[in-house]
Amino acid sequence: MLFKVEMKVNIPPEMPAEKVDIIKSKEKAYSQELQRQGKWRHLWRVAGSYANVSIFDVQDNAELQDLISGLPLFPYMEINVAPLCRHPSSIHSDDR
Amino acid sequence: MLFKVEMKVNIPPEMPAEKVDIIKSKEKAYSQELQRQGKWRHLWRVAGSYANVSIFDVQDNAELQDLISGLPLFPYMEINVAPLCRHPSSIHSDDR
Amino acid sequence: MLFKVEMKVNIPPEMPAEKVDIIKSKEKAYSQELQRQGKWRHLWRVAGSYANVSIFDVQDNAELQDLISGLPLFPYMEINVAPLCRHPSSIHSDDR
Amino acid sequence: MLFKVEMKVNIPPEMPAEKVDIIKSKEKAYSQELQRQGKWRHLWRVAGSYANVSIFDVQDNAELQDLISGLPLFPYMEINVAPLCRHPSSIHSDDR
Amino acid sequence: MLFKVEMKVNIPPEMPAEKVDIIKSKEKAYSQELQRQGKWRHLWRVAGSYANVSIFDVQDNAELQDLISGLPLFPYMEINVAPLCRHPSSIHSDDR
Amino acid sequence: MLFKVEMKVNIPPEMPAEKVDIIKSKEKAYSQELQRQGKWRHLWRVAGSYANVSIFDVQDNAELQDLISGLPLFPYMEINVAPLCRHPSSIHSDDR
Amino acid sequence: MLFKVEMKVNIPPEMPAEKVDIIKSKEKAYSQELQRQGKWRHLWRVAGSYANVSIFDVQDNAELQDLISGLPLFPYMEINVAPLCRHPSSIHSDDR
Amino acid sequence: MLFKVEMKVNIPPEMPAEKVDIIKSKEKAYSQELQRQGKWRHLWRVAGSYANVSIFDVQDNAELQDLISGLPLFPYMEINVAPLCRHPSSIHSDDR
Amino acid sequence: MLFKVEMKVNIPPEMPAEKVDIIKSKEKAYSQELQRQGKWRHLWRVAGSYANVSIFDVQDNAELQDLISGLPLFPYMEINVAPLCRHPSSIHSDDR
Amino acid sequence: MLFKVEMKVNIPPEMPAEKVDIIKSKEKAYSQELQRQGKWRHLWRVAGSYANVSIFDVQDNAELQDLISGLPLFPYMEINVAPLCRHPSSIHSDDR
Repeated sequence: MLFKVEMKVNIPPEMPAEKVDIIKSKEKAYSQELQRQGKWRHLWRVAGSYANVSIFDVQDNAELQDLISGLPLFPYMEINVAPLCRHPSSIHSDDR
Repeated sequence: MLFKVEMKVNIPPEMPAEKVDIIKSKEKAYSQELQRQGKWRHLWRVAGSYANVSIFDVQDNAELQDLISGLPLFPYMEINVAPLCRHPSSIHSDDR
Repeated sequence: MLFKVEMKVNIPPEMPAEKVDIIKSKEKAYSQELQRQGKWRHLWRVAGSYANVSIFDVQDNAELQDLISGLPLFPYMEINVAPLCRHPSSIHSDDR
Repeated sequence: MLFKVEMKVNIPPEMPAEKVDIIKSKEKAYSQELQRQGKWRHLWRVAGSYANVSIFDVQDNAELQDLISGLPLFPYMEINVAPLCRHPSSIHSDDR
Repeated sequence: MLFKVEMKVNIPPEMPAEKVDIIKSKEKAYSQELQRQGKWRHLWRVAGSYANVSIFDVQDNAELQDLISGLPLFPYMEINVAPLCRHPSSIHSDDR
Repeated sequence: MLFKVEMKVNIPPEMPAEKVDIIKSKEKAYSQELQRQGKWRHLWRVAGSYANVSIFDVQDNAELQDLISGLPLFPYMEINVAPLCRHPSSIHSDDR
Repeated sequence: MLFKVEMKVNIPPEMPAEKVDIIKSKEKAYSQELQRQGKWRHLWRVAGSYANVSIFDVQDNAELQDLISGLPLFPYMEINVAPLCRHPSSIHSDDR
Repeated sequence: MLFKVEMKVNIPPEMPAEKVDIIKSKEKAYSQELQRQGKWRHLWRVAGSYANVSIFDVQDNAELQDLISGLPLFPYMEINVAPLCRHPSSIHSDDR
Repeated sequence: MLFKVEMKVNIPPEMPAEKVDIIKSKEKAYSQELQRQGKWRHLWRVAGSYANVSIFDVQDNAELQDLISGLPLFPYMEINVAPLCRHPSSIHSDDR
Repeated sequence: MLFKVEMKVNIPPEMPAEKVDIIKSKEKAYSQELQRQGKWRHLWRVAGSYANVSIFDVQDNAELQDLISGLPLFPYMEINVAPLCRHPSSIHSDDR
């Protein structure tokens, strides 16, 4: 089951640079692990911003919550979620 | 080059049903032709709405404008566009 | 899987009263059938408005889309959807 | 008398972790006590967020204010309230 | 139990003047009857607008819905409702 | 001359508790003095919030500014003002 | 007593040109009469729009309501009002 | 050439009182000097707020930028600007 | 003197196609005449929309109002205007 | 390929003045280097603000992201991006 997830990062300017680096490298590892598992199907940067557009592929709403609330950057992001489903005009077999 | 395009359809309630049907079937054909050409890479319905989330893959902004302004439903949609690019944490080779 | 669905009805003032009555009675029958099936778990009026707050219980996003897009009043409503899941502090067994 | 209450938690990033833990465990105890009393009828997490959707069942507006302003997280939440009442199409006996 | 109710009137410009007059005189009679019953406790015009600020005094949310949805101008108004209760600093005995 | 004034309190979470208490007790005294003078005619809590709806009765805009800018909580509030006047349908003699 | 009044004109595109002309010439006469009486102290066009910024000088809120609701274009305008008073730094004797 | 300028002051609550006083007295002097030069033609307080509505009379956009960016409170204000011009219905010779 | 002008076209769907064509060809001629005169310095389509971003170069606010209110599509557009001036970091001689 | 980029600077008031100066002079150098390369085609100040309107000329979305995320003020700006393309009515050869 797919969800579009948009994340905008707002790291407080007063956070020490080392702490920022640690959180960001954890975020990268976490994100790549979910991508390898097939849960985080697409991940794009929005050009001109510190934001991304993602497509998650999860069992249900509860798994979406688990994955997103586990993001190391979760406390520092505005997150918007939209449930997706197959569009009747889609011809792509994986646009479930 | 990728763009996220969100389209929300607002067909005027007074439009005759036959006219609606004609526009919708033209829209479907147009959309599927662009999907076959690889220009309209993903197309998802937003669950609970008459709206979609799409990913377009175009040469440049001008081609994006050509494709979107040619949509049969173009005069009846609110459309939002965001330019995308590769995210440094993506491991998917086609998340260009 | 639960979704909160908020619906606000905007019937065009020029729609003939008989047509309004037909749509509303179809809406009522449709809604009650889904309630009997356990798909539309809660349905409340928002006091002071022509709007409701509902809780849907569906298999997945696709079923949510089927049920909502089939509403007789669908073309005349603003609809907002939020995916829900169990809250770690809930003690109610059916707040899945 | 029912109210939909939506709560979005914004804990300041600089709050010490121990203080956060204390407030959260007080919040959980407070919430579960109100659930046991039947005042906090439903409590759902909004998937992909640090927010909830709740249904309160209170005597009147004054009791709603007492219960919500007593929440340990009250100073750190955006809260939206909507008064609910029975919907004429509801068939659920407890959707008062 | 008190509610602040704000109503903004948007009569469609194409409605015939006689129909407007009939609805407005029904609205006035309805409003004055509720004022005499003590249900519509205050009614003020917002200066520079076709809008009002009102205070309703009702048994519960259901009665609020009955009274507001019965307004002859109900289909032509944007309505916002806020539940009120006694403020701890109020010294006015009727600011319940 | 009447004004509806809505005040939403946003005390910074880092303000020391004693300072908060002092400001709040000054606010209460100030508010009750204005109520006794008949300048602050109504004061209601908005249920589920740290906000109020008030009706001020002043000589003119300048007096409104004096009274509001003198509120001890003034630097910590979002304030919205709407000028009111008699509604042609009001039957209450004091809804001036 | 001064008020800033902003008016944005939205004449329905289907209104016949003669009717538009009649309303506009009535509006002009009405506006100029109020200017001559000193009630409508300033009237500026917002460049690049069909909107104005005005300063009204009235006895009280009730007079403001009378003058604005009497505008021939009143049913076709979005109107925003802000009560003004003397600024402590003003040196202009007529910026009351 | 006239511009409407709206300024809303947001002084951070943690700024020391002496620093606030110094900035405010510089602001007052700066503002009164511009008023004396005829550049800051009108200055009104918005009643019930820490905000003003002003009319500037400048040579061009560049001068507007110079004057506004030079305001001692500039870093602490939300500022909105609208270019004005003569309204065809104005009879005031100085409503250029 | 430069202004950024953003125009979004909303032609009513019920306008006959011939009338649309006439207005659009007038708009094109008008726009190109202003471009030839150097008044309409830049004109870009916003990709994926029926909107443009323009840079006007005018004597003053009054000329801006004349040029914009004379647009054949003026009654059918949402228009936003921002006054521009030279940026201290610009090295382009014509970014006045 | 052109993009309109709007940047609004929000430097935290508590940042030390020397740090502000260093960031600003880096920003100026960076901006002027991009202007010399022809990547940052236009740069205007929005009069009455600490904001600019810019036109970037880049190879693709990825280059736009590189250039913008490299801005020394990037962490302190709200940035909005709109993809542009040639307008069918433009007569300027460089309004690509």
